[in-house]
Amino acid sequence: MTSATSLLGALADVGADRVRGGYSRHGFDRVDVELREWFTAEAGARGLGVETDRNGNLWAWWGAPGPNAVVTGSHLDSVPGGGAFDGPLGVVSALAAVDALRAQGFRPARPLAVVVFAEEEGGRFGVPCLGSRLLAGTLDADRARELKDPDGTTLAEAVRAAGLDPRWLGPEPDLLSLVGCFVELHVEQGRGLVDLDAPVGVASSILAHGRWRLTFHGEGNHAGATPLADRRDPMMPAASLVLAARRAAGSVPGARATVGRLVPTPGGTNVIPSTVDVWLDARAPGDADTRRVVDDVVAAAHEAAEAEGCTVTVREESYGDTVVFDSGLRDELAGVLGGVPALPTGAGHDAGVLAQRIPTAMLFVRNPTGVSHAPAEHAEAADCESGVSALARVLAHLAGSPC
Amino acid sequence: MTSATSLLGALADVGADRVRGGYSRHGFDRVDVELREWFTAEAGARGLGVETDRNGNLWAWWGAPGPNAVVTGSHLDSVPGGGAFDGPLGVVSALAAVDALRAQGFRPARPLAVVVFAEEEGGRFGVPCLGSRLLAGTLDADRARELKDPDGTTLAEAVRAAGLDPRWLGPEPDLLSLVGCFVELHVEQGRGLVDLDAPVGVASSILAHGRWRLTFHGEGNHAGATPLADRRDPMMPAASLVLAARRAAGSVPGARATVGRLVPTPGGTNVIPSTVDVWLDARAPGDADTRRVVDDVVAAAHEAAEAEGCTVTVREESYGDTVVFDSGLRDELAGVLGGVPALPTGAGHDAGVLAQRIPTAMLFVRNPTGVSHAPAEHAEAADCESGVSALARVLAHLAGSPC
Repeated sequence: MTSATSLLGALADVGADRVRGGYSRHGFDRVDVELREWFTAEAGARGLGVETDRNGNLWAWWGAPGPNAVVTGSHLDSVPGGGAFDGPLGVVSALAAVDALRAQGFRPARPLAVVVFAEEEGGRFGVPCLGSRLLAGTLDADRARELKDPDGTTLAEAVRAAGLDPRWLGPEPDLLSLVGCFVELHVEQGRGLVDLDAPVGVASSILAHGRWRLTFHGEGNHAGATPLADRRDPMMPAASLVLAARRAAGSVPGARATVGRLVPTPGGTNVIPSTVDVWLDARAPGDADTRRVVDDVVAAAHEAAEAEGCTVTVREESYGDTVVFDSGLRDELAGVLGGVPALPTGAGHDAGVLAQRIPTAMLFVRNPTGVSHAPAEHAEAADCESGVSALARVLAHLAGSPC
Repeated sequence: MTSATSLLGALADVGADRVRGGYSRHGFDRVDVELREWFTAEAGARGLGVETDRNGNLWAWWGAPGPNAVVTGSHLDSVPGGGAFDGPLGVVSALAAVDALRAQGFRPARPLAVVVFAEEEGGRFGVPCLGSRLLAGTLDADRARELKDPDGTTLAEAVRAAGLDPRWLGPEPDLLSLVGCFVELHVEQGRGLVDLDAPVGVASSILAHGRWRLTFHGEGNHAGATPLADRRDPMMPAASLVLAARRAAGSVPGARATVGRLVPTPGGTNVIPSTVDVWLDARAPGDADTRRVVDDVVAAAHEAAEAEGCTVTVREESYGDTVVFDSGLRDELAGVLGGVPALPTGAGHDAGVLAQRIPTAMLFVRNPTGVSHAPAEHAEAADCESGVSALARVLAHLAGSPC
């Protein structure tokens, strides 16, 4: 039987980030193209027919595409300097589960597909779950085409460079209507399964979450020649925002707010910046709580900007309300797996996007430290194989008989 | 007569930064090589013999190199997204002054040279006045060779790529001993001359100034899946440092402290950084005051790091004590120019490095807004020509008779 870790090993050097550590694999970049070629070859070697949809998502079909399909998969892109498991584990586990089912002589009664969603992390164009949102129609295609990466390249330009036609981007209801249910396997991003002493679990819910870009505008000037009283330094309110985000999230149970990306322009040591861009990632158990955190942070940002003679503009880059996974499917799959535990998560997933349209479930694989989105992200080989085995049982259960 | 602004016009497109605005011209990069070729051609067209010293500084000699030389010049590199005048104005004014002296039939009785110093801003390798410090022996060559740019390229690699041998880097006392005096013309970085209603002035002093790099170490993790209580987020103490720097500088008269460069790693929106690098630029009227500001900031950084379960490492990247320019030369030149005013500055210059070794002076040209290190940096054409005229008179005075 193919192991998930041996498949992951084939990707060990692809997109390794020599500066940050870990991996930097972003939608439609050179590394992503290599990952797509790898997946297409692996799927082809298994006799799966691979199709690229209008939004750059890859679909590898076991049997002819058709209605009531059972679909599994995840993504191959990463955050900047991310770990080896977030995303790829779900893809390689799907391929390994297909191998396991084949080895058992299983023949699906429903179409079965392995999908690779594009730019799930939003590491290049800022909007997470880009491929699945476009597919599902929850992200406007015109807005998407104009999204820019840090170098100023638009998504339209990037998909064209990767061999796709940007005019095609947009909802694909006919394809989505073929999907009877979707199951995503993912490394857990937390220590829930460690605490429960279980290698595998199912997902119960995802926090509401979004990304906001706050741009502070001041006056670029010389760091040595400009007296303090003459400054309009946008780094000052940007720093205040970072601290305000922690305070605001701390006042709402279960909420999280993070500034992981902050870019002063021009970014010289001896230069007062003219602008500072700050990205706020905020999440909470419900829509109202998330909005409350963001409203508090934005109010603090305006106050701090004004105190420094600066201004601030705020843009919501993405937002997704709380996802509660289909409880029937969740309990059914937990039962198939002998009563594995159900866990909530604070991390977003393509499964959360699809859950708004079709019955969707997730399987989590134990993460011994809980660390994710970092080079230290890990899952033990034995737990990965438990994940493959669980996914194979779930797929056999779902695809074993016609709906 | 050649005008300074027409010479500057020839550089209008060289190193233009389409993302930040202004210019990004950094030591030994592709743009810098183009600027060096331009200077060499301009000097050659004037019959000046151009030599590159061991540290990549260019020397264009009017007459044979020899002792008691009168040297003028500045630099061609910029901060990231810098203005058109900081540096290049001193170089083009020197060339235009040579033209003016030639047109007057002037023949120098002492050797005269126009110098272009390498990487004055430290925009690529972090240490300002890199070329003049190496020349003067105030920066250790072994340390310099290992300096890295943001891409991880060492100075040794960069100078080799630019056609120099990195083993040559280091002090050049024989060359420096030829310099009888040095005069640098520079756009003013402040509104002193505006307030005094004067197009040109001379420098009196430069603030003590230095750069410190503080690296906060935390734990990279997922921005959504990591509860606040489990975080060791280095962005928190980094933000505290920005605010502490302003407070510390505000408590010392005449001091300035700036964070213009702040880099979280990995820098993803949905990622708690594992490290954040913060560069502190601090300046004050004297050594003790500057050290006091920095000590206060570092103490605050340690405290904030500890409160978040992070650590911080501090490295001094450069330091220069207060420079008081040779008062005899300053008064002599002010007199030659009809009693122009003398002004202090908070900005560092190659002239400040050379002043530690040889009689040195600076001429400032009026800056209508005072803005510098930004695309809005400006000097009126008429003021630039007043600068050329003043520099020509100063050079004629200094080089007109043998010492």
